[in-house]
Amino acid sequence: MPVQLNETHDPALRSWIASANDGTTDFPIQNLPFGVFRRAGSSEQFRIGVAIGDQILDLTLAQQAGIFSAIMDARLAHALASTSLNAFMDLGNGVSSAVRLALSQALREGASAQAALHAILLAQADAEYALPAQIGDYTDFYTSVHHATAVGKLFRPDNPLLPNYKWVPIGYHGRSSSIGVSGQQFRRPIGQTMPPTATTPVFAPAKRMDYECEVGIFIGQGNALGEAIAIDHAEDHVFGMCLLNDWSARDLQAWEYQPLGPFLAKNFASTISPWVVTLEALAPYRKGWTRDAADPQALPYLDHADLRSTGAFDIQLEVLVQTEKMRQDGTPAQRLSLSNFSHSYWTVSQMVTHHTVNGCNLRAGDFLGSGTQSGPLPEEAGSLLELTEGGKKPIILSNGEQRIFIEDGDSIIIRGWTQKDGAPRIGFGEVEGRLLPARNLE
Amino acid sequence: MPVQLNETHDPALRSWIASANDGTTDFPIQNLPFGVFRRAGSSEQFRIGVAIGDQILDLTLAQQAGIFSAIMDARLAHALASTSLNAFMDLGNGVSSAVRLALSQALREGASAQAALHAILLAQADAEYALPAQIGDYTDFYTSVHHATAVGKLFRPDNPLLPNYKWVPIGYHGRSSSIGVSGQQFRRPIGQTMPPTATTPVFAPAKRMDYECEVGIFIGQGNALGEAIAIDHAEDHVFGMCLLNDWSARDLQAWEYQPLGPFLAKNFASTISPWVVTLEALAPYRKGWTRDAADPQALPYLDHADLRSTGAFDIQLEVLVQTEKMRQDGTPAQRLSLSNFSHSYWTVSQMVTHHTVNGCNLRAGDFLGSGTQSGPLPEEAGSLLELTEGGKKPIILSNGEQRIFIEDGDSIIIRGWTQKDGAPRIGFGEVEGRLLPARNLE
Repeated sequence: MPVQLNETHDPALRSWIASANDGTTDFPIQNLPFGVFRRAGSSEQFRIGVAIGDQILDLTLAQQAGIFSAIMDARLAHALASTSLNAFMDLGNGVSSAVRLALSQALREGASAQAALHAILLAQADAEYALPAQIGDYTDFYTSVHHATAVGKLFRPDNPLLPNYKWVPIGYHGRSSSIGVSGQQFRRPIGQTMPPTATTPVFAPAKRMDYECEVGIFIGQGNALGEAIAIDHAEDHVFGMCLLNDWSARDLQAWEYQPLGPFLAKNFASTISPWVVTLEALAPYRKGWTRDAADPQALPYLDHADLRSTGAFDIQLEVLVQTEKMRQDGTPAQRLSLSNFSHSYWTVSQMVTHHTVNGCNLRAGDFLGSGTQSGPLPEEAGSLLELTEGGKKPIILSNGEQRIFIEDGDSIIIRGWTQKDGAPRIGFGEVEGRLLPARNLE
Repeated sequence: MPVQLNETHDPALRSWIASANDGTTDFPIQNLPFGVFRRAGSSEQFRIGVAIGDQILDLTLAQQAGIFSAIMDARLAHALASTSLNAFMDLGNGVSSAVRLALSQALREGASAQAALHAILLAQADAEYALPAQIGDYTDFYTSVHHATAVGKLFRPDNPLLPNYKWVPIGYHGRSSSIGVSGQQFRRPIGQTMPPTATTPVFAPAKRMDYECEVGIFIGQGNALGEAIAIDHAEDHVFGMCLLNDWSARDLQAWEYQPLGPFLAKNFASTISPWVVTLEALAPYRKGWTRDAADPQALPYLDHADLRSTGAFDIQLEVLVQTEKMRQDGTPAQRLSLSNFSHSYWTVSQMVTHHTVNGCNLRAGDFLGSGTQSGPLPEEAGSLLELTEGGKKPIILSNGEQRIFIEDGDSIIIRGWTQKDGAPRIGFGEVEGRLLPARNLE
């Protein structure tokens, strides 16, 4: 069942931290996303914090200041003092909701905790981040029918959308070890490709480097092996969401992906944003999930009345590029596309339920990718492969540079936010990553 | 470079533990595999041990008895006192080799440590096991060309072996959370299938349940993101090997696997044997790796002269079934197939090098599956799908029962061993797992 609105959603709430009230921040008091941070450049242990305006509240210190005393027990104390969110996620959404309420009360204007908490804030500009959780397993889905159709056309012109697509929330297992947090820099991967006219593969740095604009989903409380999560309880097992860039080497992918799926084309790096926005924070920004009349209805195990009223999330997803030259010239990053998560063919709860219907167990901190979120319009495409029509139509940047795929030194930035009349802007911050040159082959 | 022979391989070595010298044990003093165990039915912490004959030597207690004093330092002490092998694996094969030598010296006839160690042995019959390591990422390869061809024929009759197979060591990411140790029991998975004549998928328990007989490979010291592991150093990053049953639901697989590979058809359970046999123990049992003259040579990054002399492992792989009725009647498990790991088209070092050539990082405790190890002969097939020719040719068991696929209550057992003239039998023990009925759909 979708999260109910409560006092933390009140649009009239204001924080005693001024930057949380400016109407442009991603992190007003109605958001309160969780992350793992430390002072930048320090060797401090990472710790759990919450973003508020342009500041971070350290939850270990906040706990010592007593703001959670009404809900504190040994498990919560242990979880909040941890170096990752896994133990907190494992306590379930009832606990994270109670913590969120205590934070909302302590951070709003007039709160008695203001003096104690003010002293322990850290400016986000002075922080660095770790992954929010130790990701045990990472699964990437493929929930945008617009992306699946566009990419299918390029890989299989005769057969773009496979017959299972509209019945099965297609997903596959990804690589955990190479997931990094925003700011990740990684080398252009090297590997095999088979050029169209060749008879022997070429071994060289990948040429068709791409991004994929995705929403990332952190699992909260998991399920036991053999027990499925029913569709009407799926969101109880979702801690929150962030942004994901699923970097892809299209030329490696085309040669390796049959019959078992993408492997080296993906597992060299994936980058996520540092703040996890809870489903509770997103409750006012839900939309109905719809299917075209021509599409099959979901099978009963993937269907529920609530999906039609609140199954989708109205989250804007913007992708920007900043080339090496743009950085040198002081040119700001330039938008490549803007889409919305509500175009997704499958919902978050359908991903969770499908993943477990066979008895597969999810664990706290497991991570799901939504798949590339392309919308119905060409300018809503979530990858360069789509924007450049398979590399045939270059993108002209405002400084005159052209791009077909990502070049060495390019940064790709994804931003996400939601907003509506009468409710504040809730943002995800951003995920930025940069492609470095390939390692030397000599 | 392959491991060199040393005094631990001496076939004349005998242990003061009589069961290690009987010529039939999997665990003579020349083996010394590592695992994680505790007293069966207890709530003790799991701890690291080594198998010797029908006994287990607890390495925490052995350390207290002083047998590692010449090589001890703080990191090794920490690793040996851990509840999993990850920290020990991360110390690298130089350290595990030194520990193995100390164990060989302490366990051989006439060793001064005999009295102290005898007192701390635990019979394997009184032990239970955990996974040897916390598996961060699990990758399953597809290295048997005989399996790939046979399965390809069933899934794609017109196109059995895809053009990339003989160039690329095909692999894909699997699920870590559902990997269990021998003795695992799991429910028949439920999911979508699309019968040949249907237009709407069926949602029901899987009907075509299968096993896959594989070798499992534990990574020792890993590599940094962005750094590849060269083929001539690949085995330095392999801690050891075990047995793996990659359970598969063929009917789920056929409907879901395009275009991103198997997902729910595999991730409900995978089962591994508890003891990890080091590459050092297997050094006398290496074979040359060969290709048919008609096959392409491996690309240079996957090729090395040592492969031709010692690239392959001569490991017999036997699969057996014991049905519920056989258990009730006291009928022993019956052999379904016998194959050999040396039939593999790709080697262990090629898997490791290919996995990292794009910069993907491996971590200590990561796990690779070899893929189903089918040999060239029909009776060497490593799955029921192959043995029954896609479900068309039932197997008649000696008690009159028939099997096309696995039925509820069936146990599948995989055993592995190697042996040659003038060298003792080295075994892997076994991996056993049992299929339980599907959960109730009401």
